[in-house]
Amino acid sequence: MRRAQELELGLAPRPAGTTLQRWLYDELRAAILSGRIAAGRRLPSSRDLARQQGVSRGTVLSVYEQLMAEGYLASTTGSGTVVVDALRLQGAPARPVVPALPGGRHLSPPSPPSPLSRLSRQGRRLADSPFPLYESSLTAVPFRPNQPDLAAFPWAVWNKLSHRCNRQARPDAMAYGEAAGYRPLRQAIAEHLRYAQRIDCRAEQVMILGSAQQAMDLCIRLLLDPGQAALVEDPGYPGAARLVELAGGRVIDVPVDGAGLCTSPPLPVASDIRLAYVTAAHQSPLGGALPLERRLDLLAWAEACDATIIEDDYDSEFRFDAAPLSSLMSLDGAGRVIYMGTFSKLLFPALRLAYVVLPEWLAEPCAAAISLTCRHLPVAPQAVLAAFIAEGHFARHLRQMRLRYGERAAVFQTECRRQLGGLLTVLPITTGMDAAALLDFPGDDRTVAAALAQGGVEARPLSFYRRSQPGPPGLVLGFSAFAPAQLCQGVAAMAPILEACRAAGAG
Amino acid sequence: MRRAQELELGLAPRPAGTTLQRWLYDELRAAILSGRIAAGRRLPSSRDLARQQGVSRGTVLSVYEQLMAEGYLASTTGSGTVVVDALRLQGAPARPVVPALPGGRHLSPPSPPSPLSRLSRQGRRLADSPFPLYESSLTAVPFRPNQPDLAAFPWAVWNKLSHRCNRQARPDAMAYGEAAGYRPLRQAIAEHLRYAQRIDCRAEQVMILGSAQQAMDLCIRLLLDPGQAALVEDPGYPGAARLVELAGGRVIDVPVDGAGLCTSPPLPVASDIRLAYVTAAHQSPLGGALPLERRLDLLAWAEACDATIIEDDYDSEFRFDAAPLSSLMSLDGAGRVIYMGTFSKLLFPALRLAYVVLPEWLAEPCAAAISLTCRHLPVAPQAVLAAFIAEGHFARHLRQMRLRYGERAAVFQTECRRQLGGLLTVLPITTGMDAAALLDFPGDDRTVAAALAQGGVEARPLSFYRRSQPGPPGLVLGFSAFAPAQLCQGVAAMAPILEACRAAGAG
Repeated sequence: MRRAQELELGLAPRPAGTTLQRWLYDELRAAILSGRIAAGRRLPSSRDLARQQGVSRGTVLSVYEQLMAEGYLASTTGSGTVVVDALRLQGAPARPVVPALPGGRHLSPPSPPSPLSRLSRQGRRLADSPFPLYESSLTAVPFRPNQPDLAAFPWAVWNKLSHRCNRQARPDAMAYGEAAGYRPLRQAIAEHLRYAQRIDCRAEQVMILGSAQQAMDLCIRLLLDPGQAALVEDPGYPGAARLVELAGGRVIDVPVDGAGLCTSPPLPVASDIRLAYVTAAHQSPLGGALPLERRLDLLAWAEACDATIIEDDYDSEFRFDAAPLSSLMSLDGAGRVIYMGTFSKLLFPALRLAYVVLPEWLAEPCAAAISLTCRHLPVAPQAVLAAFIAEGHFARHLRQMRLRYGERAAVFQTECRRQLGGLLTVLPITTGMDAAALLDFPGDDRTVAAALAQGGVEARPLSFYRRSQPGPPGLVLGFSAFAPAQLCQGVAAMAPILEACRAAGAG
Repeated sequence: MRRAQELELGLAPRPAGTTLQRWLYDELRAAILSGRIAAGRRLPSSRDLARQQGVSRGTVLSVYEQLMAEGYLASTTGSGTVVVDALRLQGAPARPVVPALPGGRHLSPPSPPSPLSRLSRQGRRLADSPFPLYESSLTAVPFRPNQPDLAAFPWAVWNKLSHRCNRQARPDAMAYGEAAGYRPLRQAIAEHLRYAQRIDCRAEQVMILGSAQQAMDLCIRLLLDPGQAALVEDPGYPGAARLVELAGGRVIDVPVDGAGLCTSPPLPVASDIRLAYVTAAHQSPLGGALPLERRLDLLAWAEACDATIIEDDYDSEFRFDAAPLSSLMSLDGAGRVIYMGTFSKLLFPALRLAYVVLPEWLAEPCAAAISLTCRHLPVAPQAVLAAFIAEGHFARHLRQMRLRYGERAAVFQTECRRQLGGLLTVLPITTGMDAAALLDFPGDDRTVAAALAQGGVEARPLSFYRRSQPGPPGLVLGFSAFAPAQLCQGVAAMAPILEACRAAGAG
């Protein structure tokens, strides 16, 4: 009798590394859920099962207890431990009903729809990111764009501040914080901007977010409904256009020239155009700085549409030839500009801190939006950054990087001119960490970028940034993270590859 | 002549704390933008202006240079420095045109629309968060809900790990990381869940996010389109229903009893119902644990609708009377359950780390969604947490807090029974950090909570969690962050206030 019962339970052998208790629980539960041990069926007593399986009775008792607590088993006086009767065992997916054909044959069951069909329409847009989900290699290779020189970052200072903030933090400060961000950081940013960007703002207008993408995702949702439109630069930063589309918005591509977004012919005016996204200080990717006239045109356009401008000032701190230009926001008297910056490129990307400066009227709605969609950002990194800014390390680091990146820009331009004549023309570099360059021969810049990647050189095709506006093929090349010797070698490595592309005809 | 020119420039006196250069720049720019210095107008020579204003000529030259770089001024041979002619000065908001009435009188200008009218429809939903934007006080007061005992957290261990992670971090590791999160943390979470929740998942299915809200915001957008519906518990966690509404979704309120979400009468089945949100281990706020039968009902429902279940397991690790119940996800054979947890309540809220475990098919779409909407979470806190889990501190802390919170739950229940008879009945506490309690007299629980707040006691009205389903008035009371003596005092402080509310008739 006992042996028969044991066989009927049909427990699989215990896998290595699993405790006896866990194994017994898993096996019994699986047998119940699969119906191998039927509803109403009586289980062996704990003593018997312990003997059969060679485990302690305590182990069996605690497994029975857990399965009772979870509703699989019941203990009844007289009949011991039984599988619960009322249990409908529907855990496993229902099998499609297979209709019988005449003659008793069966059609093969219809293939189930892919679970990806469960994605919503906006889910399908969400599932299509322009950014790499993994970095191809941790160590940046020339000429990967958007890379700060991480070796030049003052890690010792940062770690000292981090250690000090940890020691000083009171446990209370580790509870929930303000939705808009850690107040001393917001104050430090407001002071920095007052000086560096002539933006006259209060700490209350500064909101801390994890990245420019998160900031834009929120601002676009705050200001744009499905079906409404936003102006974006074309070519332009793809992260912006994608978020407009994600929100169900219509993207209006505005052409760009060497001085940024073109305001002539005049920008379209309509009441359903709610937003414009602009990289005014350093157009991404072509590199121009928006002249004052176009800035005023843009502000007048926003007034005419009752729209809002998102000014993405992602690396304007690195302007080599002159002081940074005054921001659009500093020209705005009507609360129409959202100013956005990130520390990813000024300090280091893994920090994941960015900010927006909002017109007064938008501050409280945005704080509520942060609260609803993420509560607030982690406090410890904000505290370290606040100290880093307040104690002058931030300004010093920016000064040093401006010099360093300026030197590298000059080396890069000189080397390209020297080694890549007739192959690639680098557009003027006045600001930032990346250069745009046009191919001197017709072709597909994606093919060229793929050929360069084969040769160990990273380059982003200009068409990555293009939408509907036509333009010549080109590459975006980052110079900031690479020492002059690396830059020279990288340019030298490009020359034969570009030559081969030109020879192959159209890349 | 010179004095006249000086007067015409009309520069305001320099405010304290402003550099000469900044003051001169700001004043000249404001005068140009306002039209006080007209387009085409010639400015004094740098030598003259320096003398007039009592500043160095170098200061004037660099201000002129900056204004030229920005396009306000031009330098022309023969006529010196002039205000740029083509400049249309539209920076200031256009004034509404005031029509003249017969007789030459004017209507008062129409009042301009509030800038809040620029918010989108979803922006108005975003601007309405159920969470406090600021915490009322940093130190938690009894009986603030959702508060871990921060004094009991092993800060010394955490800071040591943090310091070690900082020292070991290579600069390369501070570049952009994986969208889905820091891989060693995802591995540590997968291992923890395998053991603690019987969830058999790979690290690839685990995604790191900043909070449960951020995780839900993404999952809802991935799976629900405007106009489609989601089931939520009523009463239930308001953060979930709000995010469904934010996504333009329809919320279907499902009643809740002492054992969680009711599956009888049967849950509605329709193809446009895409989601259910459930707190299976510890219903928020009533505290019940969903029995096995209802879990199977819910899985069968998801199969019938082709829908997905979000299982929010926010504090199931703190189950006092038995081992944690197996999760819904561990019962799911069909990839229909998203399991969600947060470290805010297990460790400390300012950490801002949470996770979701996804069915295989949803992992890559979700990683892309993270990449598009925030790129990835900060790496340093993830590295510290990974070490904290891998080295056993996490499991040890959970064990200690389970004991501690269990003791506090018992004290709290006993004291309420002893001191609040006829006033408040605490529902059974088996799990977690908070208790639900029903008022023993009719009334509005918001009024009662306000009266308690006046008396220095924090309590959240049950109606905060209610939507359309009727139910008795009550309070949600957190006990976890308070020592037994504080709990006794807090209960004692409640007694006279509740008595007064009862006497006042209906609170």
